[in-house]
Amino acid sequence: MTIPGYRSPDLQLAASPITPDRWAQMQEAALFGADDVAALRRSRPILEPSVDAILDVWYGFVGSKPFLLEQFTDRSTHQPDGDYLARVRARFGQWILDTAEARYDEGWLSWQIEIGRRHHRIGKNKTDGANSSALVPFSYLLPLAQPIVHTLRPFLERSGEGVDAVDAMHDAWRKSVLLQVTLWSFPYVVDGDF
Amino acid sequence: MTIPGYRSPDLQLAASPITPDRWAQMQEAALFGADDVAALRRSRPILEPSVDAILDVWYGFVGSKPFLLEQFTDRSTHQPDGDYLARVRARFGQWILDTAEARYDEGWLSWQIEIGRRHHRIGKNKTDGANSSALVPFSYLLPLAQPIVHTLRPFLERSGEGVDAVDAMHDAWRKSVLLQVTLWSFPYVVDGDF
Repeated sequence: MTIPGYRSPDLQLAASPITPDRWAQMQEAALFGADDVAALRRSRPILEPSVDAILDVWYGFVGSKPFLLEQFTDRSTHQPDGDYLARVRARFGQWILDTAEARYDEGWLSWQIEIGRRHHRIGKNKTDGANSSALVPFSYLLPLAQPIVHTLRPFLERSGEGVDAVDAMHDAWRKSVLLQVTLWSFPYVVDGDF
Repeated sequence: MTIPGYRSPDLQLAASPITPDRWAQMQEAALFGADDVAALRRSRPILEPSVDAILDVWYGFVGSKPFLLEQFTDRSTHQPDGDYLARVRARFGQWILDTAEARYDEGWLSWQIEIGRRHHRIGKNKTDGANSSALVPFSYLLPLAQPIVHTLRPFLERSGEGVDAVDAMHDAWRKSVLLQVTLWSFPYVVDGDF
């Protein structure tokens, strides 16, 4: 299945401005290590059958908050743009699998920066031909890491694994999302301050 | 005891550019609510006797990572600046108590932005007359939320409270730190994109 606008890997993407060394330091700062990579990969077969159910929870949350739904609302019709929502949703589902896959090569880093651009005014709407808000404000971008990670817990618990194993997967997800949101922030940050 | 450079509340501080409405939306986005405020306040008497021990853990972590210790290293002597470290440490201890206090008036918002300025090149070193790195790079600032919150857990457990009560306090801390780090990011973000 082809996912519209999904570009990983894609050698035509701009190279990541974040060096592999910096990315390694970021992981150290977040206490993210090999155990987390292993825990993320264990979560993949657990989450894969639930991707649609997870997206239903996330989209339900976005739909319940006017200031979030605004990010998908057409500026002419003032109605949610169903096509834009559907295209982003398909990529979001793939993002769950990619996060669980935890393969951090340079193509992946470039793709994270591109995801950031699509939240920022540099790239928002463009990939999907949408006419929605000019950018997702930075002040929403980071806090949303919390509901994304929080709502995964019951899906991880469905595995039937013990609390320690679920905790390990959940912690790894928490760190990975924090790190990815940091990478997505790149276009928002003043040149030279990242 | 007077804490050098601590300015909360301080009516001379610049007013926060973040409106109370935006701050309320940020809390909604992070699923932060009245239960979290209550849980933070319950954590205050638990953490207060351990403030120095918590700071020992955090400073031990910073000292163990050259790219973090660099933020406190004098650019002329290439040695860690003990005075700078001590002054920041005293404020960091007060920050633990303030976070547990969870009183979010406009003075508190202004103080969060000032904390951000002191990490950013606009304000770093100035309050303490230090000659250290020009800024804490954004790419370290966010990921550090993880070790700060993670290392609190054993101190919360010392309360002898049950797992659910400890989880509630820990989650509230996690959300509060995520929200505060977002506020601290303000000086790093391009004008109009926050």
